[in-house]
Amino acid sequence: MQQKQKPLIFITNDDGYRAKGLNALIDALRPLARILVVAPDDVRSGMSHAITMGLPLFLRQVRQEEGLEVWACSGTPVDCVKLAFDSVMTEMPVLALSGINHGSNSAVSVIYSGTMGAAMECSFYNVPSIGLSLLDHSPDADFTGAVRYSLKIIERVLGEQNPDLPMCLNVNVPNIPADEIRGIRVCRQNKGYWREEFERREDPRGRDYYWLTGAFLNQEEHATDTDEYALREGYVSVVPMQVDMTNYRQLDKIKKLYGRNNK
Amino acid sequence: MQQKQKPLIFITNDDGYRAKGLNALIDALRPLARILVVAPDDVRSGMSHAITMGLPLFLRQVRQEEGLEVWACSGTPVDCVKLAFDSVMTEMPVLALSGINHGSNSAVSVIYSGTMGAAMECSFYNVPSIGLSLLDHSPDADFTGAVRYSLKIIERVLGEQNPDLPMCLNVNVPNIPADEIRGIRVCRQNKGYWREEFERREDPRGRDYYWLTGAFLNQEEHATDTDEYALREGYVSVVPMQVDMTNYRQLDKIKKLYGRNNK
Repeated sequence: MQQKQKPLIFITNDDGYRAKGLNALIDALRPLARILVVAPDDVRSGMSHAITMGLPLFLRQVRQEEGLEVWACSGTPVDCVKLAFDSVMTEMPVLALSGINHGSNSAVSVIYSGTMGAAMECSFYNVPSIGLSLLDHSPDADFTGAVRYSLKIIERVLGEQNPDLPMCLNVNVPNIPADEIRGIRVCRQNKGYWREEFERREDPRGRDYYWLTGAFLNQEEHATDTDEYALREGYVSVVPMQVDMTNYRQLDKIKKLYGRNNK
Repeated sequence: MQQKQKPLIFITNDDGYRAKGLNALIDALRPLARILVVAPDDVRSGMSHAITMGLPLFLRQVRQEEGLEVWACSGTPVDCVKLAFDSVMTEMPVLALSGINHGSNSAVSVIYSGTMGAAMECSFYNVPSIGLSLLDHSPDADFTGAVRYSLKIIERVLGEQNPDLPMCLNVNVPNIPADEIRGIRVCRQNKGYWREEFERREDPRGRDYYWLTGAFLNQEEHATDTDEYALREGYVSVVPMQVDMTNYRQLDKIKKLYGRNNK
């Protein structure tokens, strides 16, 4: 019965339920919480906030142990969240996590990221949510530092008396040895864009095809209050997120340009 | 040679290059501009800002006429934009359009929308961009009103001397007869979320599967400065968009909670 009194934490990701980062997080949290995982059945990187509209979703349980349930879903990370909250959970979790992602989700990468799409979707259910990412893409990345700082942040969020909801934190951990991480910095999203250079090839039947490659174009190299800066300096970056994408700076100007009730 | 002097307009969408809404927009713009279309080769609704990371992209020209080129791409709407700007265009367009979408993209729907994902991606290339949507999902929707008001807004944006870039407008047109539309309202994104109710079925082999269905939960029914309100009142809504998702309201509070340089 004591197991039952532990809080319930929901976890998802975009690298799939087998990913090392997700399983490192599960292992670290099992002493503290009961855990429910609903995650993609395979890699779904770059899926952003995508949802599956034209196809049905398949869901199967892949693991069930004392205090741990893992489900694999055929859909996107956001599909996993929606299915979990609507059709899998029998109680609301105290916290929702997405990750730990293999690779960075700082700056404008948040809008392409399945990890952050899922984290934001969780926050819509009035549960504090955290997207967790390590700046190392490799499948066998070392998650020691990422787990250490994830736990610090998770404990802080769980310790808050009246969290200001909706709350969604975007946490990125630099790819340096755990003991060299200098601490945590709360910051804002760095401005900038990804610029692509597609690599064009020809398939054996003579058809052209293209591989996406790109580089981040930092539009504020010298800012010191951004996630890019914090990470470059060896800190874990924490950016509070929200989903109102209105450009308030432009709103009044455009209102004047368009007049009111323009026919 | 006169054809060459017309400005170049780029168009994409998420309903695919065959969609009625896209082709209504092409027909309306051909007298005014040269048009380049790079659009998905089939329906890609709900794809948000997703990009294709693990697979190559295929691209083929499906139409070429005086002043009009149409390319079909195997990827997401955002892939289409990236490929267009990197690998198809030989000159920068004066304007980028996404749509006209079959279905609404007001309120929080912007974050799920392939139409708006593509429109926002275009704005990253310092071209004024507009996402255009009609509140009618049906494949044979009547685009008369949507085309009329799209042209009004397009002409206004093209007429601006020094547009404040990046600029991305989210335009939604109510599903009422063109002559009953009351005008244009510049507004902000309505707060609210989609709540799902998955419909669970069993396939012929006994496996459960789920269909996504949902309803919009309006969190500010009484606000009069939002896109939802404008549309309900019979106006075309115009919301200026941006992609910094930092929650500035929470930023200082969370900074205090976390202290500085926290180990």
